[in-house]
Amino acid sequence: MSKWKVLDTKEVLNTPFCRFRIDRCELPDGRIMPKYYVLDFTDWVNIVPVTENGEIVLIRQYRHGSGKSTLEIPGGALDARCDSSPQIAAVRELEEETGYTSDQVESLGVHYPNPALQSNQLHTFIAYQCKETMKQNLDPFEDISVELMSVEDVIQKVYSGEINHSLIVASLFLALRKFNLSPLPTK
Amino acid sequence: MSKWKVLDTKEVLNTPFCRFRIDRCELPDGRIMPKYYVLDFTDWVNIVPVTENGEIVLIRQYRHGSGKSTLEIPGGALDARCDSSPQIAAVRELEEETGYTSDQVESLGVHYPNPALQSNQLHTFIAYQCKETMKQNLDPFEDISVELMSVEDVIQKVYSGEINHSLIVASLFLALRKFNLSPLPTK
Repeated sequence: MSKWKVLDTKEVLNTPFCRFRIDRCELPDGRIMPKYYVLDFTDWVNIVPVTENGEIVLIRQYRHGSGKSTLEIPGGALDARCDSSPQIAAVRELEEETGYTSDQVESLGVHYPNPALQSNQLHTFIAYQCKETMKQNLDPFEDISVELMSVEDVIQKVYSGEINHSLIVASLFLALRKFNLSPLPTK
Repeated sequence: MSKWKVLDTKEVLNTPFCRFRIDRCELPDGRIMPKYYVLDFTDWVNIVPVTENGEIVLIRQYRHGSGKSTLEIPGGALDARCDSSPQIAAVRELEEETGYTSDQVESLGVHYPNPALQSNQLHTFIAYQCKETMKQNLDPFEDISVELMSVEDVIQKVYSGEINHSLIVASLFLALRKFNLSPLPTK
C-alpha cells in the first residue's frame, strides 16, 4: 500500500490553529481520487504526570467542542514560538496547567490522532516524581482544576467512561506498562 | 464548570463529511470568547472483532491524512442513509471491511474523539465468535487487507508503536477487561 501521489492541492480554510485542504490524488493503481479532505494542525502532546506518591495529576476543564467538562491529563498543541521539541511542549503544558514540575520526563510513544483526516502526530510523555512547585499559569480562557488520583482509580474511570477523551485514553494505554500494570508480562 | 452559552454561530465550511463553525460564546463568569472553532461530524464507530479462536481481526489500509499505511480495527462513520444506530454502523463496517460477521456484539463504551475541537462521539463495540462468511464489500477508494492476530500481539504492537492510530488504541483499551487482561482485578 504505497503512498498516494498528490496531483493538486487547494487550501479551503486557514485558521490560527489549523489549515483545511483538498488534495486531488493518484492512487498506486492509477485511479484518481478527486477530493480528499485533510486538516493540518501542529503536533499535539499529552503528558502522564506521576507524583512521588505514585498518584496521577489529572485536570478537569470545560471543552466547548463536546459541551462538557472532561477529566484529562495535561496536554496541548506545540507552540512554534516557544517549543523547540514535543518534550518541551509537554513539560510546558504540565507546568502551566497544573503547577507541577518534574525533572524525570520520558517519551512513551508517538501516535496519529486521526490519520484518515489529519496529518499531525500526538506525542505522549510520562513525568515521574512530580511536585507542585509553581502556580498554574493558564491561557486567558482556560479554567482548569487539578485532581490527584491513584493509577487504579484512573483505569477504573476509563472503564466506567468518566475519562472519555479518546486521545487521553490512548496516551494512558501507553503508560500502563510503566506502572507494572501492563496486561502483558513485564520484561 | 457549566456550559458556555453560544451567543452567535457562523458556518465557515460545509463539506460532505463535516461542518466547520465559529461560535461566539459567553463564559459562566460573563467573559466573551469571540471565536471558538468547532468541527461537526456524524458519530464514529470502532469494533473489536474476536474470532472463535480468540484472535483479533485487524485491517491494514492507507490513510492519506498521515500518508502512511496503518494497522487498525474496523470502524468508520455513521451513515444516516443506512445506520439507525451506532451498533448497526459498527456491524456494517465489520462486514464491509473484513467479510467477518458475528451475532454477539456488545457495547464497550462511548468516547469523545476530540472534545476540544469536535462535537461528535466515538462508539466502541466488541464482536465475539466472528466468522468469515462474506466477501469484503469496500467503498470505491478503499483498499483493505485483513490480518488475524493474538490479543497479546495486538497489545505488544500498541506498545511498540506499530498500532499508532489514537482512536484505535483508545478503543482497544476498553476491550482489555473482556480478555481478562485488564490491569485491574476482574470482578
